[in-house]
Amino acid sequence: MGINHQIKIINERLKKKKLKISIAESCSGGLISYNLTKLPGSSKSFIMGVVCYSNESKIKFLKLKKKKLLKYGAVSIETCKQMCKNLLKISKSNIAVSITGIAGPGGGTVKKPVGLVYIGIASKKKLRSISLFIIKNYQGLTFKKRF
Amino acid sequence: MGINHQIKIINERLKKKKLKISIAESCSGGLISYNLTKLPGSSKSFIMGVVCYSNESKIKFLKLKKKKLLKYGAVSIETCKQMCKNLLKISKSNIAVSITGIAGPGGGTVKKPVGLVYIGIASKKKLRSISLFIIKNYQGLTFKKRF
Repeated sequence: MGINHQIKIINERLKKKKLKISIAESCSGGLISYNLTKLPGSSKSFIMGVVCYSNESKIKFLKLKKKKLLKYGAVSIETCKQMCKNLLKISKSNIAVSITGIAGPGGGTVKKPVGLVYIGIASKKKLRSISLFIIKNYQGLTFKKRF
Repeated sequence: MGINHQIKIINERLKKKKLKISIAESCSGGLISYNLTKLPGSSKSFIMGVVCYSNESKIKFLKLKKKKLLKYGAVSIETCKQMCKNLLKISKSNIAVSITGIAGPGGGTVKKPVGLVYIGIASKKKLRSISLFIIKNYQGLTFKKRF
């Protein structure tokens, strides 16, 4: 099942449950927001997207603490969680999603290799995060769970 | 010349001139940010993107005045100009770009038909805006100048 099909299912569920969503994207650079907003009826669910590629924008728009951001790094589970937690408050959505990772081709290290992606999901009741490896194939991007 | 080729040229010019850019996207939903951030070296030029699909996010993040937004409408030259003008200040970029339009398939009127798009470009010295018609073809999206 490709990423676009998964986004279609998410869009349908959001509409059905009348939930509002916002997305903060670092490594995906707006791809998820674009694929969601192009679907019919998504304007009823989609509040906003932030393409926060730079640390500067993470601090300025997502109100991340500079000290913590530098301590854990932009690509870390701690930063990812904070991104969606803060976005939930700022956007007043029911669900906030954050994505940060090493998209490549450069930027990878032994500890944080190219393909490593953290995804955070926040609601008023829950804050969850998962780490994945992005694998590119002919159907587009697919995700493999890491832990 | 397709949109991706144009974005490549823009990326090269930004790098060469060491300019920082930010983008506010309404109807394009993150497409321009995504196409720019996937290019090598774009992280040096790209400050941030805002996918401000809803009026709510235009007011909250781009600090648009609700009264003016409702007076002119989300798809108007006035709103488009204000979007990039405000983003320039907020993001502290050298250039801010805004895009708002009627992407379709629904939402068009006789006065504002599907395909109508306003693009705003702001720098410290200049504030410009143009209106275009989006035409979809097999090479992707192309723009035709309207006025």
